[in-house]
Amino acid sequence: MPHSPALATAPLLSAYRGERPGRLPVWFMRQAGRSLPEYRELRVGTRMLDACLDPALAAEITLQPVRRHGVDAAILFSDIVVPLKLVGVDVEIVPGKGPVLAQPVRTAADVAALIAHAPGGATPEAFDAVAQAVRILVSELGTTPLIGFAGAPFTLAAYLVEGGPSKDQLAARTLMHADPQAWQRLMDWTAQLSSAFLLAQIGAGARAVQLFDSWAGSLSLADYERAALPASTAALAAARERVPTVHFGTGTGHLLAAMASAADVVGVDHRTPLAEAAASVPGVPLQGNIDPALLAAPWEVLEGHVRAVVESGRAAPAHVVNLGHGVPPTTDPDVLTRIVELVHTL
Amino acid sequence: MPHSPALATAPLLSAYRGERPGRLPVWFMRQAGRSLPEYRELRVGTRMLDACLDPALAAEITLQPVRRHGVDAAILFSDIVVPLKLVGVDVEIVPGKGPVLAQPVRTAADVAALIAHAPGGATPEAFDAVAQAVRILVSELGTTPLIGFAGAPFTLAAYLVEGGPSKDQLAARTLMHADPQAWQRLMDWTAQLSSAFLLAQIGAGARAVQLFDSWAGSLSLADYERAALPASTAALAAARERVPTVHFGTGTGHLLAAMASAADVVGVDHRTPLAEAAASVPGVPLQGNIDPALLAAPWEVLEGHVRAVVESGRAAPAHVVNLGHGVPPTTDPDVLTRIVELVHTL
Repeated sequence: MPHSPALATAPLLSAYRGERPGRLPVWFMRQAGRSLPEYRELRVGTRMLDACLDPALAAEITLQPVRRHGVDAAILFSDIVVPLKLVGVDVEIVPGKGPVLAQPVRTAADVAALIAHAPGGATPEAFDAVAQAVRILVSELGTTPLIGFAGAPFTLAAYLVEGGPSKDQLAARTLMHADPQAWQRLMDWTAQLSSAFLLAQIGAGARAVQLFDSWAGSLSLADYERAALPASTAALAAARERVPTVHFGTGTGHLLAAMASAADVVGVDHRTPLAEAAASVPGVPLQGNIDPALLAAPWEVLEGHVRAVVESGRAAPAHVVNLGHGVPPTTDPDVLTRIVELVHTL
Repeated sequence: MPHSPALATAPLLSAYRGERPGRLPVWFMRQAGRSLPEYRELRVGTRMLDACLDPALAAEITLQPVRRHGVDAAILFSDIVVPLKLVGVDVEIVPGKGPVLAQPVRTAADVAALIAHAPGGATPEAFDAVAQAVRILVSELGTTPLIGFAGAPFTLAAYLVEGGPSKDQLAARTLMHADPQAWQRLMDWTAQLSSAFLLAQIGAGARAVQLFDSWAGSLSLADYERAALPASTAALAAARERVPTVHFGTGTGHLLAAMASAADVVGVDHRTPLAEAAASVPGVPLQGNIDPALLAAPWEVLEGHVRAVVESGRAAPAHVVNLGHGVPPTTDPDVLTRIVELVHTL
């Protein structure tokens, strides 16, 4: 029932459209994952990417926090490198380290080899496992919308060039300046890949999508606008004609206005007060920005913070409550449930 | 000759005082270190902290880039955790990982135990090894000023609480909110330690000091002003009466005006154009901000960037050219020499 009227009026989707629904919607980035004992139990013996690519398992993991916390959205359990894996890039997720690529893409020849080997605008079949998980979820979720998910082209490119996580994305930023043509070809490829991955999820029933640009915060505004934003805009363009789109990164206070140009909603990290973000992107619905560090503070401290975030969010036309970054693995899940209960009274 | 007239008119010190000297001064954060083959040779078989605490070795390492590049300043070869080590905190620097503390400081009781065990306002004798290195350097450096160095109280506290490097300083930021009294005691202690460490270097002949707040960029402006800046101000107060002081962190575009209130000069990372920084801290001399990612780009790309940085810096009353972050270990040192030559023609 991807177009059921009840789903269309879900608080999350109303807020993403810029309205103020009767109930303030809330969900948590990385709500499906290590903070939940039922997740840790389910993952025993299964590697991260295998879990993402097992439709029934990925669907079950996605549903766990929805059942437990009563959040206003499910977000597909996946990883930024999943589409890379699906088009044949040799990547694994190493526990405690993150994604590791067998062959970093450092030169124009590396970029050409990557593109020749793995089409960016992959056929929809490449993403079948993920589309199947989405279809299972849509039939299970009822009136709770599912948010689709992709890494932004810059973040994908940074993983490809660095060969894994990195502190300042130094090698990626070097390629950006040292060989702008090779960089552009790489960004065109990652933009097509992100776009196709989002469209596969939308086609299967995702009702909104979020583009995660984990590393964009390492760029100056000038570099971002010239060498990263055009690809994010391209990655979101077709999705945006069909569902609400959210654009998020951390350490991106200086990039918010640029990021807002590519999507309908902007996610804000804990460093930028929502009222300040609202002033820099007038008219744009905001998502965020409970400080994950506060999740481990006494409840009265956290409660005061959540109320302050909601109050600050009133400066925006619409607000979806979320964290300013992903749920830390050490989080007590009962605290998240309590936040949902609190937000729904505000 | 700590007060020789030639040294007093050194371009670096003129610029730090807000003047425009005849020669545009330039030095590089982490100029002494792994980018230099003569450093790698000297360090064989010696652990990082042992090298920092061997006065003759630390002095020689400090001198290497001055001889090689002709930079306008030496910066004491040291590490942010050196003063912790010198007052008895059990810390080691693990290659490839960074500082690791035997016992993270997570609770009010941990803070009390730390303070009881190790006085923050340590006696000057505690820093003898470092003062000795400074004295050797002052006699060798002639008219090139030596910059002293300390980690900012927040960054020291973050290392103590996290037990090592961390991505978002989550545990430290939790303590800040969960137990503001314990946090305040910890910050008072680290502020005294940073202050005493800087004063020991100034007493031995350092002609300027830089406070490095590596992790401050993870804080919102409100948290920074409330829970970190007062300690940085205290750490710099006594030093500031005697020599020019520089305040630097990365990802601190949103904190520059606050940081400028504690020091004479503000260091700017590669994300914030100097002209923009100059507008947010009018009247303040700036230091920075060549993008380290460009050091590995073709010379004509790097040259254009260096010229643009110098041009942008003309918006400030005075400018000391530097990188926007430390020299990457993989940097070709000849490139740094070439930058010095170029800057001295501008």
